[in-house]
Amino acid sequence: MEIKKFEPKEKRGLVVVITGYGKGKTTSAMGMALRAAGHDMKVCIIQFMKGDLYSGEWDGVKKLKGLVELTATGKGFCGIEGNPYSHVEHRKNAQEAIELAHTKMDSGCFDLLILDEINNALHLKLVDLPQVHALLDKRPAPLHLILTGRDAHPEVIDRADTASEVREIKHAYRKGIEPQPGVDF
Amino acid sequence: MEIKKFEPKEKRGLVVVITGYGKGKTTSAMGMALRAAGHDMKVCIIQFMKGDLYSGEWDGVKKLKGLVELTATGKGFCGIEGNPYSHVEHRKNAQEAIELAHTKMDSGCFDLLILDEINNALHLKLVDLPQVHALLDKRPAPLHLILTGRDAHPEVIDRADTASEVREIKHAYRKGIEPQPGVDF
Repeated sequence: MEIKKFEPKEKRGLVVVITGYGKGKTTSAMGMALRAAGHDMKVCIIQFMKGDLYSGEWDGVKKLKGLVELTATGKGFCGIEGNPYSHVEHRKNAQEAIELAHTKMDSGCFDLLILDEINNALHLKLVDLPQVHALLDKRPAPLHLILTGRDAHPEVIDRADTASEVREIKHAYRKGIEPQPGVDF
Repeated sequence: MEIKKFEPKEKRGLVVVITGYGKGKTTSAMGMALRAAGHDMKVCIIQFMKGDLYSGEWDGVKKLKGLVELTATGKGFCGIEGNPYSHVEHRKNAQEAIELAHTKMDSGCFDLLILDEINNALHLKLVDLPQVHALLDKRPAPLHLILTGRDAHPEVIDRADTASEVREIKHAYRKGIEPQPGVDF
């Protein structure tokens, strides 16, 4: 059997939104990073609100031969039980992440830019809608831009080429099963 | 800020089903592979029905320092336009993939086993429900087993710890945009 390789006539960057309450948003973005690395594309991942709790992808991407960089700018999920940081502190982190997104986009060094949890950060008012529009406005045509996180804003979904809602059918934690490495973090 | 690393009191394998018609099922599984590789866990990926058309993850996982192996056993999606193989041929491939899944599970070499598109293969009668139950029955307790593909069987969802439905909100191809490397393949 011959293996074919699809070549789009027109290569273009896509805006992809992955939202919803089920498991599989960040992992889907990480899977796109892995897929892109397979094409020797350069990937930048900026994690909003994450950074206080280790997750396997931090070391996973380091193994991808310098193709993927990841910065976790946050201090955990704003407002969830046990998170000690104020809204002001979370917002400061998220604002730095927006600045970083501009810097990385302006650098022209990347083919795929993942803004992990930015939808959630917007919903929680850690970033503002015009700031997300501004990033979408300046996106260079060849750049893929992936925006993950629950509660995606309808105006952001409007601007996406592809958008999915990951709906929870069930989740292990509801049975009292703790998060497990490799799957949950 | 101190970075914490969660350690579950009880480490255990999870059964995860990712189904639905939206974008993000295979990429979510690939993201778990990347995450697991970050934990230096060993991952095996068996792709049902895929193998005729190059996808970036094939080379992406090769870069993960020998932690992830991937076998694409199939000849493309059974029954879709342009696919020249008969149901008999697709079923033969899928049956080989089931055998391979047993071999890999029995080897004890892996922490995470991804059966990509197996839900779809079951729905299309390329594999049989008792065959999927048999794999679930023999799953060693520490092994994570990820089953992706649209139209997941309700009995398979019943046996999952975590299950998500990736619902399509929109997809670029409906606007006539061709699949793009790094995102779609």
